[in-house]
Amino acid sequence: MTIRSLAVTATLIMLLGGCASQPAMQGDLVIAKQGSFFIGGREVRSDRMSMVPTVTAAGTIVVDQMYVRYQVPPSAKRVPIVMVHGCCLTGKTWETTPDGRMGWDEFFVRKGYGTYVIDQAWRGRSAWSPAAINQVKAGAAAIETLPTLYAAGQEPAWVIFRFGPEHGKTFPGVKFPVEAQAEFWKQMVPDWFNALPVPNPTVPSLGELARKLGGAVLMSHSQSGIYPFQAAALDTNGIAAIVSIEPSACPAATSDLTPYTKMPILVLYGDYMDLSPRWSPRLKLCREFVAAANQRGGKVQIVVLPEIGITGNSHMLMQDTNSLEIAEWLSKWLETALR
Amino acid sequence: MTIRSLAVTATLIMLLGGCASQPAMQGDLVIAKQGSFFIGGREVRSDRMSMVPTVTAAGTIVVDQMYVRYQVPPSAKRVPIVMVHGCCLTGKTWETTPDGRMGWDEFFVRKGYGTYVIDQAWRGRSAWSPAAINQVKAGAAAIETLPTLYAAGQEPAWVIFRFGPEHGKTFPGVKFPVEAQAEFWKQMVPDWFNALPVPNPTVPSLGELARKLGGAVLMSHSQSGIYPFQAAALDTNGIAAIVSIEPSACPAATSDLTPYTKMPILVLYGDYMDLSPRWSPRLKLCREFVAAANQRGGKVQIVVLPEIGITGNSHMLMQDTNSLEIAEWLSKWLETALR
Repeated sequence: MTIRSLAVTATLIMLLGGCASQPAMQGDLVIAKQGSFFIGGREVRSDRMSMVPTVTAAGTIVVDQMYVRYQVPPSAKRVPIVMVHGCCLTGKTWETTPDGRMGWDEFFVRKGYGTYVIDQAWRGRSAWSPAAINQVKAGAAAIETLPTLYAAGQEPAWVIFRFGPEHGKTFPGVKFPVEAQAEFWKQMVPDWFNALPVPNPTVPSLGELARKLGGAVLMSHSQSGIYPFQAAALDTNGIAAIVSIEPSACPAATSDLTPYTKMPILVLYGDYMDLSPRWSPRLKLCREFVAAANQRGGKVQIVVLPEIGITGNSHMLMQDTNSLEIAEWLSKWLETALR
Repeated sequence: MTIRSLAVTATLIMLLGGCASQPAMQGDLVIAKQGSFFIGGREVRSDRMSMVPTVTAAGTIVVDQMYVRYQVPPSAKRVPIVMVHGCCLTGKTWETTPDGRMGWDEFFVRKGYGTYVIDQAWRGRSAWSPAAINQVKAGAAAIETLPTLYAAGQEPAWVIFRFGPEHGKTFPGVKFPVEAQAEFWKQMVPDWFNALPVPNPTVPSLGELARKLGGAVLMSHSQSGIYPFQAAALDTNGIAAIVSIEPSACPAATSDLTPYTKMPILVLYGDYMDLSPRWSPRLKLCREFVAAANQRGGKVQIVVLPEIGITGNSHMLMQDTNSLEIAEWLSKWLETALR
């Protein structure tokens, strides 16, 4: 074989979809390693785990663990991304969009990142305990001890997610695929958040996962927007960067900001912030946090997408019709931040 | 480029792990298509979806939908496999084993099958409704209206899953990786099964998924062992084969067996069946079903693994240390059955 034909061979190999060492953004996807596991967990025992006769009433189960599903491409970049969903949702947030396009979980694998998608503790594939409910049903505990649960109905969620100013009405130019809303509503699940301690059990697990991976970007959304900050307050080790997307809260500007000076941080919001009585005060508080953290020597950036010329984004910007355009921008931000 | 160097090129391409058209059992995994979606779903409205002040109390949510995550290899075989987990578990059942080995979800992709892993309705990433619990907490409904929930504690589950005759004791030669049991217990979640109608809402969704895929193998386990049969009783279209692993029930031998004569069927059990007072009567009833279905012209096979020389398998045989040996056997069974 001549040197020339070796070169041709190499070119041919590069041209074969999915066979190049850098994953392609289309065509076959090459995975070096994938799977799932749990982080954390705490045993609880009850005399009323089961209310059906075929399964013994008493027993020990594990709660607080965090389910993690991951995919790592060949020649992965050193720092993987952990993706954390928000209120009333699961890791499905980051997968195929309601209108059937590629999710960020796959996009970032194709960009060369290992991606780790989690289900928050007590939600999705992360177990919750039925014991408190069973105790009340059995007459062994007071009604008041039932957990405080909530599901977000479509009507309030429409406004919270900034699809429009009121249920059924859209903001002009909104890029959430409302024609696929039926598929989106199926993503929503009940939320134990208010029945759990602060910080949420997911928080220490995120830190533990980041350290287990030898460093990771913690990318959070909405309810979980604050989680990476809370994890950093516990221990900054392993947290290579924070990307907080549409956080419902940032750390208080008056809190100890030292942990947030240890890594690059991005706070990212979509469009229509000023039109939302729910979100505009949150944005204001996050801006105060960012200013204060930067005064303390932090490298914290806050971006509201219309400010960089990207308009029409809802709260669910990872599912909006321009989701991959935002992901592309984000991957450039990460490359610079992690340099 | 000479013909000779073209041949060398072809050989080189074949040798590059993951780049052959037939996926390799080790090394890089090539995926032509992956993602997630939901099947089914029904809107429910309540005045008490939320018990927290930040989310409006009244609203409409969707329940009964079935979460599906899939991976399809290049040059996939015509018939994909739908994997359905059992009691108190989620789709995690089929993923990475507790001791960190490849799950059947990936194994069968490497064997050339599209695999579709589901979460049963009201479990995992498939939503449940908190409305009935919230109504009781608000004092608007009687305690008796609380749902009948159960979680299987580790102590009873140990015996149910045939790790051994009693909690903490193993059967001689059992192949469940008991040293990794802590990771296994984290897979277990509460179960709404007894609070849901019969057939479970998952059942019609399995049929719908099979038809959407233009034909599929329905592979079920334990509690869901009966689901493919129930789906076939509703409509056999799309159900290319049934693989019922360790079913807790088969159809009654005296029922209408016509639907079960329309496709190849395998009922598969592990070891220690005679040592289990829970499982031995179930095996007996399944044998009666198989005999009756075959008398009616069915092609139904029942295999208890020790009968074919494979010993030591628990109820969780897709996670036992010889799980891939069983998967290999199963893939040969499927090749013959689907020929």
